[in-house]
Amino acid sequence: MDAPPKSKPNSKTHRDLAPENFLEQAEKIAEWIANYLENIRHYPVLAPMKPGDIKQILPESAPYNPESFQQILEDFDQIILPGITHWNHPRFFAYFSITGSVPGILGEMLSAALNVNAMLWKSSPAATELEQVVLDWLRQMLGLPETFAGLINDTASVSSLCAMAAAREAAGLNIREQGLAGRQDLPPLRFYASTEAHSSIEKSAIVLGFGQNGLCKIPTDAAFRMDASVLQQAIEDDIKRGIKPIGVIATLGTTSTTSVDPVAEIAKICQQYQLWLHVDAAYAGVTAILPEKRALFSDWEFADSIVVNPHKWLFTPIDCSVLYCRRPEVLRQAFSLIPEYLKTAESESATNLMDYGVSLGRRFRALKLWLVIRSFGQSGIIDAIREHIQFAQQLKSLIEVNSNFQLLAPVPFSTLVFRFIPRHKTVLPEAELTRLNQQLLENINQTGKVFLSHTVLKGKYGIRLAIGNLKTTWDDVLLAWHIIQSEAEKILMNYAFKGK
Amino acid sequence: MDAPPKSKPNSKTHRDLAPENFLEQAEKIAEWIANYLENIRHYPVLAPMKPGDIKQILPESAPYNPESFQQILEDFDQIILPGITHWNHPRFFAYFSITGSVPGILGEMLSAALNVNAMLWKSSPAATELEQVVLDWLRQMLGLPETFAGLINDTASVSSLCAMAAAREAAGLNIREQGLAGRQDLPPLRFYASTEAHSSIEKSAIVLGFGQNGLCKIPTDAAFRMDASVLQQAIEDDIKRGIKPIGVIATLGTTSTTSVDPVAEIAKICQQYQLWLHVDAAYAGVTAILPEKRALFSDWEFADSIVVNPHKWLFTPIDCSVLYCRRPEVLRQAFSLIPEYLKTAESESATNLMDYGVSLGRRFRALKLWLVIRSFGQSGIIDAIREHIQFAQQLKSLIEVNSNFQLLAPVPFSTLVFRFIPRHKTVLPEAELTRLNQQLLENINQTGKVFLSHTVLKGKYGIRLAIGNLKTTWDDVLLAWHIIQSEAEKILMNYAFKGK
Repeated sequence: MDAPPKSKPNSKTHRDLAPENFLEQAEKIAEWIANYLENIRHYPVLAPMKPGDIKQILPESAPYNPESFQQILEDFDQIILPGITHWNHPRFFAYFSITGSVPGILGEMLSAALNVNAMLWKSSPAATELEQVVLDWLRQMLGLPETFAGLINDTASVSSLCAMAAAREAAGLNIREQGLAGRQDLPPLRFYASTEAHSSIEKSAIVLGFGQNGLCKIPTDAAFRMDASVLQQAIEDDIKRGIKPIGVIATLGTTSTTSVDPVAEIAKICQQYQLWLHVDAAYAGVTAILPEKRALFSDWEFADSIVVNPHKWLFTPIDCSVLYCRRPEVLRQAFSLIPEYLKTAESESATNLMDYGVSLGRRFRALKLWLVIRSFGQSGIIDAIREHIQFAQQLKSLIEVNSNFQLLAPVPFSTLVFRFIPRHKTVLPEAELTRLNQQLLENINQTGKVFLSHTVLKGKYGIRLAIGNLKTTWDDVLLAWHIIQSEAEKILMNYAFKGK
Repeated sequence: MDAPPKSKPNSKTHRDLAPENFLEQAEKIAEWIANYLENIRHYPVLAPMKPGDIKQILPESAPYNPESFQQILEDFDQIILPGITHWNHPRFFAYFSITGSVPGILGEMLSAALNVNAMLWKSSPAATELEQVVLDWLRQMLGLPETFAGLINDTASVSSLCAMAAAREAAGLNIREQGLAGRQDLPPLRFYASTEAHSSIEKSAIVLGFGQNGLCKIPTDAAFRMDASVLQQAIEDDIKRGIKPIGVIATLGTTSTTSVDPVAEIAKICQQYQLWLHVDAAYAGVTAILPEKRALFSDWEFADSIVVNPHKWLFTPIDCSVLYCRRPEVLRQAFSLIPEYLKTAESESATNLMDYGVSLGRRFRALKLWLVIRSFGQSGIIDAIREHIQFAQQLKSLIEVNSNFQLLAPVPFSTLVFRFIPRHKTVLPEAELTRLNQQLLENINQTGKVFLSHTVLKGKYGIRLAIGNLKTTWDDVLLAWHIIQSEAEKILMNYAFKGK
C-alpha cells in the first residue's frame, strides 16, 4: 500500500468529517484495539452488570449538536466497555468460543470504508467474484466436490432458512406462486431433524409456514446422534398418514454436545424418499479441514446444502455464515425476484448473489475471510483447530479421573459437557444436582476469570465448556479447570455444613 | 482513550497475530482509508470490468502457508480495488446513494475488535442496551411515540420479513404451531402493497408461505402512490371471495420514484378491517427528522411496524436496518424459541433481542449508529439531508427547463427519474425512446465519472439519479447533469446522421 499524500490540516470532505480527522481517530482506535488485544486477560469475561445499568447512564435523547470523538470514546471506555461480555477473551468458553482475529478486524476496516453492496455483480464485481473464489478455496479445504457453490449470509439461522426454503421449492408444489394457505391440493408438509438440532431449524420451519408441527424431532442415541432407523420409520409413518416429507436436517456438531448425526445413513434415506438433505455444520464443519476428522464428514457431499460458519471456528469476526448448495438453481428459483430497477446487462453472464437469499443488501464479507485464510494459511488454521481439539481432549482426561465430576457426553471436537456430582452424595436427586450445578456455574462465572454456559441433556443439567479462541492457551484451560474445582469445593463445604 | 503500554516487538498472542502487528497494519490501513476518502473522486465510480475478470487473476486454491499482510494488501490494491464499484464516491447516484462516514467506519473497527454477539442481554449487556437507547434516540428524532420499540436487522428485506411474520402471527390462526399447509380450516391469506412496493415485500410473501398470489398489488395514481380506494375495494372483494386479508404494506419513499403512499388513509382502512400495517420507509424515513418533511409522515404512527434504514440515508455503513414495532410482544410471539442452552436468569428482567427476529447471532451494530448520531448531532444530520433534497430540487428545475429531457415522476425527496426525449423527435415510439435512454445511460456510466441507474414507470424507461452521500457537493450534481447532457448530445448527433 502506498503512503497517502499529506493532507492539509482541517480540510473537509463536504459534510463528512475530514480524512485526516479519520486518520487521527483511526490511529487512536487502532492503539486502543492493540492494547485491548494485548491486555484482554485483565478484563472480566462476563460483564458484571444488572439489567438497566447501562441504559440509565446514557442520555435519554440524541445530542442536537455534534460531539467530539474524544468525548464519545471516553464514554465508550467508561460506559460501554464495562458492559461488554468479552467474546474475544481467551477464557470465553460459553456457547461457542469465537475469535475476532487480527486479519479479520483489518478486513472489516477495509470493508466499512468501501461500504459496497454486493447485491448485484455490477454493484461491485470484485465483491461478488472474491466471494465466489474464497468460498471455492474453503470448499476445497473442506473436501467438498466442485458441484457445491457457496455464498455468505449473516448467520446460520438465515443460511438454514434459505436451504429449507430451497427444499420447499424443490418439492415442485408451486409454492412460490400459490403459497401454502387455503390450498385443498396440499397435504401437511414436514421437515425432520434430531431433538438436538439447533433452535434455528424450528424457527425456520415456523417462518416458512410449516409450523412447529411441520418439524418432526427424531430422538437421539446415547451419544446424542440422530437415530436413523427412527427417522426412516417416522417418514414411513408420515407418508401413510398423508403427510408429505420435504427434507431432513442433519447436524454435524450439535449445539449442546457437538454430536455428529450419521450423515451417510441419513443421506441414503433422503435419496430413497427424494428428500432435500440440509447439513448444519455451522460450528464443526471447519474441522473437515483436518485429515484426522474427515471421517466424521464422510458422505456429507450427498447433502443438497451445507452450512459452515467461519465466524464460529474460522477466526473471522461475526457475521460470516457460508451456505454451500449443490443445486444453486433451486435456491435461485426459490428466491429470485428481479424488479426493473435491478436489471443489468450482465444478468446472463454474471451471478447476482441477491438472487439466492432473503436479503437484497449484502455486505462485502468475503474480504475479511480472504484476509483470514491468507494470513493464517491452511496450515495455521489446521494447527489452531487441532490444538483446540487437543486441549479439549486433555481436559476431558482430567475430568474423567476426577470422582467429583461426570462427563455427560462424548467429546468429538472441542466442547465438553460435564457436571459436578459430589462424591459423598451420589444418591442426590436430579433436582438437587441441577440446583448444585446451577449454583456452581453462577459462582464460576462471577469470578470474572472465565465464562462457561450450560445445557440440559436427557434431563441432566450440564456445564458446557467450548474451546475455540486463537488466544486460548493450555494455561487458560487449566485455569478454568482449577476455578471449576475450587468453586465446587466451596459449594461442597457449604453443602456439608448445611446438611448437618 | 488512554495510550496503551508499549508492547515488546514480535510478542505473540498465542496463535493470533500479535497486537503490535495489528497496530502496524491498522495504521497502514488507516492511512490507506484516509487517502481513499481524500482522493475518491479520482476513481471510476463504476468498475470497468467484465464478468470473470477478477476471478481469473485470483489463485484457484488457498495458500497452504501464511502470507504476509504486505502481499495481501498489494493484491487488494491491484486486484480487488479495480473491481470495486465505489458506493462511497460522491458521484455514485445509482440505486440509493449511501455513505460509509468517518464515524461509521470507526464504529465498525471497534465492533469488529470486540466481536460480541448481542443475541442475549447477558451475552453483552452494553450491546443490547445501547441498541435500545440509540434506537430510542432515533425514534424521538423521527417523531414516533414511545410505544414503538426498535431493533436492528441487517437489511430492510429482513426487517419487512419479520414485520410480515408478526402480521401473520397477529391474525391468531395458530400458524406458529400448525403452519399453513394441509389445513382445511385456513382460507387463502393475503397481504396488500402497491405495484411500486419493494421486491423484498413479494419475496417475504413467498418465504412466509403466502406465495406471490398472497400479495395483492394495488395500482398507483399518477404520482405513483397507492390508490387507497382500490385497496379498500380489493380487501372487500377478497373477503367476499373467502380470502382472509392479513396486512398492508405502505411505502413511504418507494424505490423507483420515492413516492409516498397515503398512509393516513391506509391506516384507517387497516383499522377498519383489523389488519397489520407495516410501513416501509427504509430510504425516506429518516427525512421525518426534517420539520418541513414531517407532514409526509403524518399518521405513520398508526402503523404496527415501520422500517427505517440508517445504512441508506443516515450515513451509517451497511448493514443497519431498524425495525420499529408498536406491538413487540407479537414479534416475540412469532419468533421466540429459547432452547435450554440459551436460557438465562435475566430472561424476565432483560430483553433478549434474539427473540424478535430470524437471526440468532447479532452483530454489535448499535455502536456505529451511536458514533454517527453523536458525531454529526441531530443538527448535522438535518443539514445534510436537507441539502441533498435541495440539490435534487435544483436539478429538477434544470431538467424542467430543458426541452430535451422529461421528468417522469414528482421529486418529494432527493431522487429524480427523467428521460431523454430529443426535441426534434417527439413522436418517437416508446421502444425507440427506451433504446435511446438505455444507450444514454450506458454511455454516461462508461465515463466513470458518475454512476446512475434506471427504472421503468408505467412502461416508460427512465434514468434514475439519487443524491445521498455526505461528500456530494452541488458541483458533483452539476457535473452529472453536464455529462448527461453532453452524452445526450452525442447520441443525438449520431442519431441525426443515421436518420438521414
